[in-house]
This record gives sequence, structure tokens and C-alpha cells, in this order.
Amino acid sequence: MSGKVEPKTLKGFKDYLPQEQRLRLKIIDTCREVFELYGFLPLDTPALEYAETLGSKIGEDEKLIYKFEDRGGREVALRYDLTVSLARVVAQYQNEIKLPFRRYQIGSVWRADNTQKGRYREFMQADVDIVGTDSITADAEAVGIYYEVFSRLKIPDFVIYINNREVFNELRKELEISDKQITEVIRAIDKLDKIGLDGVIELFSKAGLSGDQIEKLKSFLNSKNVSNAYFENLKQILDVAGIPASAYEFKPSLARGLDYYTGIVLEAGIKNSDFGSFGGAGRYDDLVAQFLGKKIPAVGLSVGVDRLLAYMLEKEMFKDGAGTKVLVMNLGNEFSSRSIEVLSKLRKSGIPSEYFYDNKDLDKQFKYAEYIGAAYGILIGEQEIKSGKVTIRDLNTRTQEEKTAEEAVEFFKKA
Amino acid sequence: MSGKVEPKTLKGFKDYLPQEQRLRLKIIDTCREVFELYGFLPLDTPALEYAETLGSKIGEDEKLIYKFEDRGGREVALRYDLTVSLARVVAQYQNEIKLPFRRYQIGSVWRADNTQKGRYREFMQADVDIVGTDSITADAEAVGIYYEVFSRLKIPDFVIYINNREVFNELRKELEISDKQITEVIRAIDKLDKIGLDGVIELFSKAGLSGDQIEKLKSFLNSKNVSNAYFENLKQILDVAGIPASAYEFKPSLARGLDYYTGIVLEAGIKNSDFGSFGGAGRYDDLVAQFLGKKIPAVGLSVGVDRLLAYMLEKEMFKDGAGTKVLVMNLGNEFSSRSIEVLSKLRKSGIPSEYFYDNKDLDKQFKYAEYIGAAYGILIGEQEIKSGKVTIRDLNTRTQEEKTAEEAVEFFKKA
Repeated sequence: MSGKVEPKTLKGFKDYLPQEQRLRLKIIDTCREVFELYGFLPLDTPALEYAETLGSKIGEDEKLIYKFEDRGGREVALRYDLTVSLARVVAQYQNEIKLPFRRYQIGSVWRADNTQKGRYREFMQADVDIVGTDSITADAEAVGIYYEVFSRLKIPDFVIYINNREVFNELRKELEISDKQITEVIRAIDKLDKIGLDGVIELFSKAGLSGDQIEKLKSFLNSKNVSNAYFENLKQILDVAGIPASAYEFKPSLARGLDYYTGIVLEAGIKNSDFGSFGGAGRYDDLVAQFLGKKIPAVGLSVGVDRLLAYMLEKEMFKDGAGTKVLVMNLGNEFSSRSIEVLSKLRKSGIPSEYFYDNKDLDKQFKYAEYIGAAYGILIGEQEIKSGKVTIRDLNTRTQEEKTAEEAVEFFKKA
Repeated sequence: MSGKVEPKTLKGFKDYLPQEQRLRLKIIDTCREVFELYGFLPLDTPALEYAETLGSKIGEDEKLIYKFEDRGGREVALRYDLTVSLARVVAQYQNEIKLPFRRYQIGSVWRADNTQKGRYREFMQADVDIVGTDSITADAEAVGIYYEVFSRLKIPDFVIYINNREVFNELRKELEISDKQITEVIRAIDKLDKIGLDGVIELFSKAGLSGDQIEKLKSFLNSKNVSNAYFENLKQILDVAGIPASAYEFKPSLARGLDYYTGIVLEAGIKNSDFGSFGGAGRYDDLVAQFLGKKIPAVGLSVGVDRLLAYMLEKEMFKDGAGTKVLVMNLGNEFSSRSIEVLSKLRKSGIPSEYFYDNKDLDKQFKYAEYIGAAYGILIGEQEIKSGKVTIRDLNTRTQEEKTAEEAVEFFKKA
């Protein structure tokens, strides 16, 4: 053993201590429940990929990639998202996989981004993708899954913004905007939240649009109820599927990732909040082609688990989550045999429980019980050995009563 | 988009396609269930650490570490195990954590090792550790957790080998072996499975042991029922806790990690099999000190999730695992509205289900149903629209019957 090493977390990274990790698991579990309810199959891929694999999508974000040479001289990189690996898998295992390939994957991704509050260089994404169909029903499922996840997590005032790349294609035709200009227009609109309407209009001017074109774009950006054959069709499906219209909003100014998405685009967030988004989704019909050489339509969705966690922590949602948990307290080594016997009975009945290993003073044990989120303590001392019973202490009300071990099990099962 | 990128997995890494990943999740879920039943709290730490943090433990394994310089010029490394990060956390958050700190963590670790069958450079570990007590009851819990995990996974003939560093201390005294020699003796014994008894004896000779000492070591290695105060005490606790004696075996020749472990050492595996181990465990009272500057006793256990998966796949255990799952089949777009309505009813009742998005021929849809592991198909065509019912097809028996949607829900709930 050399000198003492300073314990510190790498800059831009985060430890999830138990209280936070419990909530984080609740989010992850909820995503997985919904994904499996919707019939998605689980996939896992390595954190490390050949750098070349990631290079195929990222473009301007390349500087965000953790890239290095491994001991075998290979250029490798930590995955930047879960979608590129999915596209690789679809191409690589085309003879083993059946289309439509409906998979979910929950895992960390890494981006060497500037760190901001609540944003880290390692963060967890919960993704579903449907590869191999251009059906609008698949698009609708992305909306349905967001709705189900946020509803189950009881996020108040969430909203799913919906747009479609097609809206911009129509706009381009209607306003006679050139191919080059429409890209600049979309990029400008994507900055609306950051630079405001005036800023966006300035960018329109710079792109060489006429006063008339800019006026029409302004009214487009202010429009709420877009009517468009695709949106109408989508709404019909969502109605049949029981997704309330209050959960989503067609938002023509949503331009997130429109360089990349080829059809529907979604963004989930909080109504009238500047918290930012909990995830994005959309149709990307070109990605798989980069590995396969032929186009396969795909639509996918990502839940930003750690963004959602940050929001729920900020709003102090579900502080509890520990469930009924029992601490068998330690009143002395002479009682440990009986204590362990009772502990085993509890565990055999599925009641999460533990024994305080050392005979420390009870005050310390009570503080520990609070830390682990135990609802009840069990006390076994001389009196309980004599009576053959155990004392159950409600750690919230600080009341206690004697019961047999079997009665205690029944009591905890109901609690 | 540039030229086509060849889709390939990095050497030594593995993709887990749905059939395998489903089983893998079953193992992970089982570990987590048991860990939570035993009252352990969840922790998560970053995949990347300062290289210096890892350096504190690894020693001769340093060449196995994925280490690189990040864009900020920091020497960083992918975690090699979950224990070093735990020790860092205990030191770093000493004011937030209460001892004993009983945490579980399930996550990937990376080692740039030579690849062998069933061994990869990224693999998943499910760890529990108890930091802050030297109680033998904590040692016993490590045995209990292994027992519970392997029992729940129905692994036949598993065994938990148990030894204790103390055994070698006693041996050293009894045979009057020097401090330096005992280290060589332990290292030699650790190679028993690889090089056989003759090879080990040769190493004893090289270490300069006398013929008499070697004879005594031989009979030590052949002994099965070690009697020793610690083992007797441990056995008493395991008896009270209901762990059957058939599940474990005191094995004086178990020398795994005895450079590192300071008390109990455990190894889980299959009786009379050369499959190798499913994980190791032990007491390590010195690790936290490397970050904290003072000793804190600790005992921990690791389940090698991917080793266990490899074994269960080899033995063709739980091929199923898909559960009841329903595919609503696509008999034409004119029926899609009703189909989606029925699909939503199923999902609202918690029945994992999906709709085949495209109107492809039924044969293709049946093959797809098999691929996803669906037990039932639902057919909705002209006849069903008229009758207001749905046809349920049992995909195993290939029989079918008509039911109302509500009856179908009840049927699947019971199935």
C-alpha cells in the first residue's frame, strides 16, 4: 500500500448514493415495465465500439466522443448514444433478427460535453426503437410510450411535442425556399428557445429570405393547430389507443434533430417550463443504411433517465420508495442466534430486512434505521427470549408491541 | 453519409441479442431481488474513474486496465471492478453515509484480458458489500446471499467453497514457515487446479520448505473437514439462518485472492466441474484505508453475471422466460383501428402485447410471433368486425377460438 489516494469523482461524472439511486431505479424500472408491456425485446451492446462505428452518425459532435487507442492498437470509443449500436446490430445480425426489430436498451452513454447543472458526461438513456417499418402506427407507439412512462411516474404537466420533417418540406414548396435555405431555416428555428423570435428572424434574413417569406415563416411559427394529413391520421390512431389529446401538442417550430430525422420528431418535456427536455424521438430512415448499404426505415425514442431524475428530485417527488423494511436490532450477542432466526423467517416470507451486526447503543441503531429507510425495528432481548415473542417498534410513531415471530411476519406482509 | 461502415463488435466484446439478454436480465433481477430482500441499498458510480483511484488496488493486474488521457488531459480509466469505487465512495462521503454501509451495485467492468470462451473484456458483476463491521454475521450473509441467488436460479449442484486467511496464519505458526514463504505457499496452492498437486509440491520445494513441512502441507491440502473455531462459529450461524450444510464446503486449499483478503474467502461454483467460478467473495479490511487513511473492516461478494449466463446457456436452462405475450396480427389496414383498440385494452390490463404494423402475409407474421416468443395471436378481420369478437390463436397448439375483447383479456390474465 502506497500513500493515501484522494477520493474524488472524475469531473463531469456523478455518484448516485442510495437515496438517489433508489429513485433512479424507479425510473429505470418504470421504463422497462412499459417497454415490455409494449412487447419490446431487450438488447445489450458493449460500452466500447470501434471509433469508426460511431463516426458514421455523429458529424459535428465528434469532439464530444471519448476516443482512445486500446492496447491492441485499435481506435475505440465509448458509445455516444444507443442508436448507432442498434443500427450496427441490425446490419451485423441480419440473418438472426426478424423485422420489425422492436428492441429496448437501457444503458449509459458518454459525451465529453461542457458540464452544466444536472447534465453529466455519463448519463443513462432508456431507448426503444422499431426498425423495419414505415407504418404510422409505429410512430404513434412512440407517443404512447412517452405518455405511459410519464403517467406512471406521475410527472405533472408533461407534454409531448410533435412535429414532422414533412412540415418543412411542405413549407419549402409553399414559400419557394431553396434546399440550402431550408436547412438554414430549420437550424434557425431550432434555436428559437435560446435566441428568441427576433434572433431567429435575423438568421432568416442572413439566409437571404425575402420580407414576404419571413412574414409567412413568422405566422407559421405562431401557429398552434397545424392541419396536415399526417397529423390528422396520427391523432386518429392516438384517440383509438386511448392517449388523451392533452398529453401532446403539434408544434411546427419543433426542429430538434431535423438534420437527422426524416419523418416524425418528438420531444418530451414540461409545459411552460424551462427545465428542458426529458428525451427526444423521431423517425430516421437512413441510419441503418450506413452499415447495411440499403435503407431500412426506423423510428425510435429515448428517455433521458438522469434528466428525469434531476427534475423529480428538484420537485421532491416520491421521497419514499423504500417500502416496508425491517431492522432487527442488536441487544447483545447472547440474543444473536434468536435474532438471526427471526431475520431468516422474515426474509423467507419476502420481507426486506436486516440485522444490526454489532451491539452498539440503541440510539445509534435507530439513526441507522432512519438512514436505511426502515419502517420497523424488531427488538429481541432477555424479556423476548423468555416470552418467546419479539417486540415490534414502529419507527415513525415510536410505539411498540409484542408479537410471536409468525404474527410479526403476517403484520409486515400487510403493512 | 460517407461509404458503408462494416458492422462489427470490438474484439473481446459481446452483443447480447434478445434471447440471451432476456436470460441475462433474469439473472440480474434475481440478484437484485435477493440483495434487496437482504436489505442492501443500491449505489451507482461512474464507469470512468481517475486512473490513480484504480491504481491503489490492482497491482500486477495494472496492464489489464483500459486507461487513457481525456480531452482535459486527465489520466482516466474504465473501472476494473466495483469494489475500488465503493471504497472511494465510503471515504468521499463519510459524512453522508452511515456505517455499516450495506450497498449493492450491478454494473459492467472492463479488463483488457486475453479472451477465452465465455470470458469477455466487458462483463457484468452484481456485488454486495458490507463496510464497517467485522462481525462474523456479516461474513455469514455472504454465504446466505450466494445460496439464495443460486437456489432461485435453480442452478443444480452449486457449491460455495469457504476458507479463511486465518487458516494459513495458523499453518504458518504450526509448520514454522516464514512470512515470505507463506506468501509463496499460498500462491502455489492457488495454482492447484491448474498445475496439480505435483506442480504445487515442486513450488513448495522451490520456496525452500523441508520434506517434513511439505508432507504436512500435503495432508493439509487433502483434508476436508477442517475444524477451526471460526468455521464452527460460522456453521452455527448458517444453521440458524437455514442455509443447508450441503450448499457449502470448507476448503482449506481455497487460496483465491488471499493476497488481498484478510479473513473469510468464498468461491461459488459447480461441484466437480471445470466450468470455473461464478464469483468470489471475502473480507478485505485494508482497502478503504487507502482512501480514508484509517482501516474500516469490510466484507463483499461478487456474482459474475455473464459467467453464470454462459453456464445456464450451456446447460440450456430456462429456455422460456418470455411470459405470456400476445401478437395482434395485421389482416389489412381496414381493421387496424379495431386492432389498435383491442391492443390498448390488453396493455391497459398489463398484458405484454404488440401489433404487427404491416399487412404482410400471415406466414411471415407467424414466424415473427415465434421469434418474439409470443404465446398467442389475435386475429381481427371482416368476420370479427361483424361479430364484435376477436379470434385468439394458440400459437403452440395452433387451435383458435372466438371471444369478446373483455373475455380475451380475462383469458390472457389467467394464461
